Amino acid sequence: MERVLIVGVGFMGGSFASALRKHGYKGKIYGYDINPESIRKGEDLGIIDRGTTILYEAGEFNPDFVMLSSPVRTFPEIAKRLGEILDEEVIVTDQGSVKGSLVYELEDILGSKYVGGHPIAGTEKSGVEFSMSDLYEGKKVILTPTEKTDKERLEVVRRVWESVGGIVEYMDPFLHDYVFGVVSHLPHAVAFSLVDTLIRMSTKEVDLFKYPGGGFKDFTRIAKSDPVMWRDIFLANKENLLRSIDGFIESLNYLRKLVEEEKEEELTEFLNEVKTKRMEID
Amino acid sequence: MERVLIVGVGFMGGSFASALRKHGYKGKIYGYDINPESIRKGEDLGIIDRGTTILYEAGEFNPDFVMLSSPVRTFPEIAKRLGEILDEEVIVTDQGSVKGSLVYELEDILGSKYVGGHPIAGTEKSGVEFSMSDLYEGKKVILTPTEKTDKERLEVVRRVWESVGGIVEYMDPFLHDYVFGVVSHLPHAVAFSLVDTLIRMSTKEVDLFKYPGGGFKDFTRIAKSDPVMWRDIFLANKENLLRSIDGFIESLNYLRKLVEEEKEEELTEFLNEVKTKRMEID
Repeated sequence: MERVLIVGVGFMGGSFASALRKHGYKGKIYGYDINPESIRKGEDLGIIDRGTTILYEAGEFNPDFVMLSSPVRTFPEIAKRLGEILDEEVIVTDQGSVKGSLVYELEDILGSKYVGGHPIAGTEKSGVEFSMSDLYEGKKVILTPTEKTDKERLEVVRRVWESVGGIVEYMDPFLHDYVFGVVSHLPHAVAFSLVDTLIRMSTKEVDLFKYPGGGFKDFTRIAKSDPVMWRDIFLANKENLLRSIDGFIESLNYLRKLVEEEKEEELTEFLNEVKTKRMEID
Repeated sequence: MERVLIVGVGFMGGSFASALRKHGYKGKIYGYDINPESIRKGEDLGIIDRGTTILYEAGEFNPDFVMLSSPVRTFPEIAKRLGEILDEEVIVTDQGSVKGSLVYELEDILGSKYVGGHPIAGTEKSGVEFSMSDLYEGKKVILTPTEKTDKERLEVVRRVWESVGGIVEYMDPFLHDYVFGVVSHLPHAVAFSLVDTLIRMSTKEVDLFKYPGGGFKDFTRIAKSDPVMWRDIFLANKENLLRSIDGFIESLNYLRKLVEEEKEEELTEFLNEVKTKRMEID
């Protein structure tokens, strides 16, 4: 690995580049982004060595390792265009939050060049200037090999993630989307909706945003996440997200019913069970 | 103010006592709790000078300032029994998260001895051993005077809160419950339900609690809050909570519909609007 290309020079792309550098990677790091401002910042901050806003120029860097870090729905188009210009030996992997059919689509385009991945790390921040070189330390990284995945490339990707502190785990692409539909995409949808609820329920008399105590700020921190990134994730993982929302509304309606009917015992039991379960993951 | 009685020697009661001490209060601090263990801990940690598990003994301490800090639904019963034994000059106030009709109920019992209050401060922790002497610094404290409230007592309560760093604001008791139903009780209900969703949607193949990345932990931190305290808040503020849950489900279903129908533009607009609004409160 001597010439890394970061596609999407934002928070995730920049963090991967910074993490490589921090952990001793000596090769080149190139960047591609549609936004010239991102390239300029990435270069100025020394996060990438050189960048471009023109995809075929990125091909001319002749990368041997490509990390897709743009919003997930841009992947197929970028893969098509990169697939035509990249070397046969290249490894293309990604940091996308959605896998499932996208993995098979990218495999159809890139063949065995592609290995699907998703680091379970991030913040609500966007922009290369917030890059964190220690973002992946102690964090799970899910790789989603299929029966077609090249074992050697999979092994390289695994080692690269381990070198920046990640804890690699393999998972079926569709199981991945079910799991992260519930544990990550649902909480984001809930956080966005909760902020919207305060907009809707504010009145002429009272601006509810003046009283953001009691956990609301922590709770909705993730509602500051990049809208385009999350629009893409929601649409790309639509079926699982809808299913998760339905499951969540079922839970919330159960709690609602216990309160409405003043079922003290069942309510205490429900809250106790939830608290116990939540304590287990600390 | 020379003899303060804390009713409910837990996290909130202990924090109020510690904050008084930190800010130079030289009088006595007594504690009442039904749990002997809490009294013992409070005494051992020097948070209270002396405590009891017997309410009429607490009366014998002859307090001139009583801070109710137990779960809100215990207030009326405790007020009835205290009302019979306390001095005429006493001030009784509270840290309860619900006001509304409870304020009028306590006023019926205690007359002008009572001033309703609610500091917008707290953590998910419970137990006197976690008491924080700086809990109220820079935090809003809502006082809910009515037409019957004694102006002098209100003024004393205001000064006491300001002495421990609180920023006092007055609000109608019913408006208070509408506001905090949306900004605090709803987020707690949502956090509890979100954890429950992971319980329900875990399968034989996958334990969803193994993948708590991506904001889920921060998001559900408040689901570790004391179940009895929250059961009481939910039931005491039932109407507002139900209304908030309904408003929230409406918001969430709107987002759900945008995703289901793949309305890219409206979805981007929705997420952008929410993000902008959320950024404003930082």
